[in-house]
Amino acid sequence: MASLGAIFTWELLGTAMLTLLGCGVVANVTLRNALGHNGGWLLINFGWGFAVFAGASVAWESGAHINPAVTLGLAANGQTPWSQVPVYIVAQLIGGALGAVLCWAAYKLQFDTHDEPANTRGIFCTGPTVRNAPWNLLTEIIGTFVLVLWIILSPQAGPGDADGVPTFGNSALGYAAVAFLVIGIGNSLGGPTGYAINPARDLGPRIVYAILPIRGKGSAEWGYSWVPIVGPIAGGVLAGLLALALPISS
Amino acid sequence: MASLGAIFTWELLGTAMLTLLGCGVVANVTLRNALGHNGGWLLINFGWGFAVFAGASVAWESGAHINPAVTLGLAANGQTPWSQVPVYIVAQLIGGALGAVLCWAAYKLQFDTHDEPANTRGIFCTGPTVRNAPWNLLTEIIGTFVLVLWIILSPQAGPGDADGVPTFGNSALGYAAVAFLVIGIGNSLGGPTGYAINPARDLGPRIVYAILPIRGKGSAEWGYSWVPIVGPIAGGVLAGLLALALPISS
Amino acid sequence: MASLGAIFTWELLGTAMLTLLGCGVVANVTLRNALGHNGGWLLINFGWGFAVFAGASVAWESGAHINPAVTLGLAANGQTPWSQVPVYIVAQLIGGALGAVLCWAAYKLQFDTHDEPANTRGIFCTGPTVRNAPWNLLTEIIGTFVLVLWIILSPQAGPGDADGVPTFGNSALGYAAVAFLVIGIGNSLGGPTGYAINPARDLGPRIVYAILPIRGKGSAEWGYSWVPIVGPIAGGVLAGLLALALPISS
Amino acid sequence: MASLGAIFTWELLGTAMLTLLGCGVVANVTLRNALGHNGGWLLINFGWGFAVFAGASVAWESGAHINPAVTLGLAANGQTPWSQVPVYIVAQLIGGALGAVLCWAAYKLQFDTHDEPANTRGIFCTGPTVRNAPWNLLTEIIGTFVLVLWIILSPQAGPGDADGVPTFGNSALGYAAVAFLVIGIGNSLGGPTGYAINPARDLGPRIVYAILPIRGKGSAEWGYSWVPIVGPIAGGVLAGLLALALPISS
Repeated sequence: MASLGAIFTWELLGTAMLTLLGCGVVANVTLRNALGHNGGWLLINFGWGFAVFAGASVAWESGAHINPAVTLGLAANGQTPWSQVPVYIVAQLIGGALGAVLCWAAYKLQFDTHDEPANTRGIFCTGPTVRNAPWNLLTEIIGTFVLVLWIILSPQAGPGDADGVPTFGNSALGYAAVAFLVIGIGNSLGGPTGYAINPARDLGPRIVYAILPIRGKGSAEWGYSWVPIVGPIAGGVLAGLLALALPISS
Repeated sequence: MASLGAIFTWELLGTAMLTLLGCGVVANVTLRNALGHNGGWLLINFGWGFAVFAGASVAWESGAHINPAVTLGLAANGQTPWSQVPVYIVAQLIGGALGAVLCWAAYKLQFDTHDEPANTRGIFCTGPTVRNAPWNLLTEIIGTFVLVLWIILSPQAGPGDADGVPTFGNSALGYAAVAFLVIGIGNSLGGPTGYAINPARDLGPRIVYAILPIRGKGSAEWGYSWVPIVGPIAGGVLAGLLALALPISS
Repeated sequence: MASLGAIFTWELLGTAMLTLLGCGVVANVTLRNALGHNGGWLLINFGWGFAVFAGASVAWESGAHINPAVTLGLAANGQTPWSQVPVYIVAQLIGGALGAVLCWAAYKLQFDTHDEPANTRGIFCTGPTVRNAPWNLLTEIIGTFVLVLWIILSPQAGPGDADGVPTFGNSALGYAAVAFLVIGIGNSLGGPTGYAINPARDLGPRIVYAILPIRGKGSAEWGYSWVPIVGPIAGGVLAGLLALALPISS
Repeated sequence: MASLGAIFTWELLGTAMLTLLGCGVVANVTLRNALGHNGGWLLINFGWGFAVFAGASVAWESGAHINPAVTLGLAANGQTPWSQVPVYIVAQLIGGALGAVLCWAAYKLQFDTHDEPANTRGIFCTGPTVRNAPWNLLTEIIGTFVLVLWIILSPQAGPGDADGVPTFGNSALGYAAVAFLVIGIGNSLGGPTGYAINPARDLGPRIVYAILPIRGKGSAEWGYSWVPIVGPIAGGVLAGLLALALPISS
């Protein structure tokens, strides 16, 4: 079983890679002087999907959660010890923030020359196209429920390997399955709220957006920020509990 | 071998995930206030393909049919006992309807603010670009024939594993093969009728469209609804029977 | 080793599936009343790539050539007995033509209502954007050289399995590798001539285009038709011979 | 362990396939008389990703570096002997140039009929959207750091197989993982500088652009050419060194 220190290191590193690449694709599509400007929704989804692929691959030794909703869902399902949960989540939040800083550095010149600086918040964190907290919350719950239920039920997961860490196979390509699922959730359920489905992916970069000296930046919209925290956690825990009632063959 | 109760549970769950994500991508592309609005045909096909990937992965214990045309084709081929067929199909129909309800809930605000409410039927069920029952039927037969023949002949399938359930491998990534095939059918044969190739994917959501209080909704086009039922079943059974005549090495 | 009858059956079936889906995606993008109309070059390449995936999967028992340039390249490399070559090629040509007929049937209504009927040749066979036989030939040689060299050198191929048939692995997903390569060739080398890289994919459907009663059809451009035959064969044989000189570890 | 001669052969061949296909997709999108003209950023990224897939697959016997930044990063990590490094890099540079020549030959007619000949440099080598050497350098460092760290940490890599050569698995599909990562880096970090992340991919084709008689060609921009050399090398070596400090389980 991975030590708490190793869990901390791998989750921080994996989540940093997730938000570096994930926020990066939105920067590429949003900012005028980027080669992917106006590249479309499928590009954004492949960007986030392969960001999950990259982040999960490097974090495989800690089970590749890189998402508090996954950690809490697996804990509710009995797979992750509750004593490890705080280490996972703190590492994910720090990693999520760190990746967003690196994304800003990679796109510094594009931020400085962007013509609509107020619209850069979407590069860092999610927001709804039509704001209505209960329905926005429901959309995030459904998306994260699909993610965590799939992780628990898909053939590679199950009750975990010998040392208690659930695994997506022993090859980098195994994590492509998670990438395909995330691309699918983005394609299909990302339309209303931008599919946070991961509190660390949203809160970490939102804090970074509020702090960094980004030219002409707009509001960080803290009034909405609880939705992409509460929704994904509720959806993940719900999936972890529901799965306990399913006739999974042992 | 999975019990009838387990078959019912897994097929219902898998088909619900299929239509939740599948109808979801069409909602995302159709509805004005969704981030994937006007995202294009390739986005729709990746959406449905990864919807199949997600649904089949969670339903692997029941053989991942999630489609009455697959169940009937495998029964005609001698792989699925006829006694189980009704359980499969009832579960698939209920699941297909349930997924469509969840899709509507996830996009509730977008349905409420859409500017062309009468064109929302296509989110739930298929329709031809040029209506002509015999040719529309033929297109659905060809598409489903390709799907079921591939399932029977592709290296992973064959006469089924030890407990008689055909399987697409013991890893979540194995179902990516089915996803690629469905994306391919959508890319190549989806142009004329929107590729139902699955009666549960079409009939379940069509019933939901007729019942749900969707703002300003149009007709459910019941006059066409038999084509995406009869066509896929005919194509699937045809494939199951033809495969019996092929020189498959045992 | 597969019998000649089995080789004939599988190659015919696999090549038919290839051109049904491959011509299908071009029909979908070309014809005005198809849902994929104007869907773009990436859609076309995913269409042909997954067409190869589907066709190769069902033809795995005969080594999944579904392309005379592959058969001749493997023969030049010493992997396919010359005595089997004619059976492979005849089956591929018949299959290529059969798939094109099915494609036309699936899109019959769209052909009948298309507004520029003279531009439908491109659905069936390839043509250059700038016509110049020597350079067009060179482009086809380079593209097919890449395809066949990759098939011989990639880790899954080599000198063939126990019964002498080269194989891309024992799972349907293995053929996804071939699909990715074909998508790559289309993305990168398809721009000048539309990447035939397969005589059966071009000649079979061209004959069908010339014969079928397609509404308002244009010329079959027989004057160009030798280029997508000679170029792919030259490229494939060149790759098969060059590979003999490479330091492949045995 | 592969001999120096074999390393030279496979790396030259693999890198030639990389730049033939990689430069090819940019030619396809850039040149007016190519079928992929204006095909978009996602098409370019799938083009380069599957170019890496093709090139790495054929070069698997030498460890599939096909990139001096990977070779130097693995050397810094202790995986590749320093004595082999010059052979790797010389072969990669020659291969990178050779592939660009073949790309030009495949698109000769399109180069001759292009209407904006001065903009063809981007087909061969990268350039920034906003020029500023330190920040451009940082973007290339971050992108290559992600690439090489992932190669070292992802489950398939590690300390190398029995003969000391790191490997991405024994099947062609294994290299699809590298392709997905490169597509991800292009999607997410390619916006500012066009993601060289490989000195051989940039310098080799830049030399070819300067030398070849391309109709109406523009400047080769030698003033920028050191950035896509120094940046990737710095990023790769940094990743190789950082990985030494990580708690990788042995």
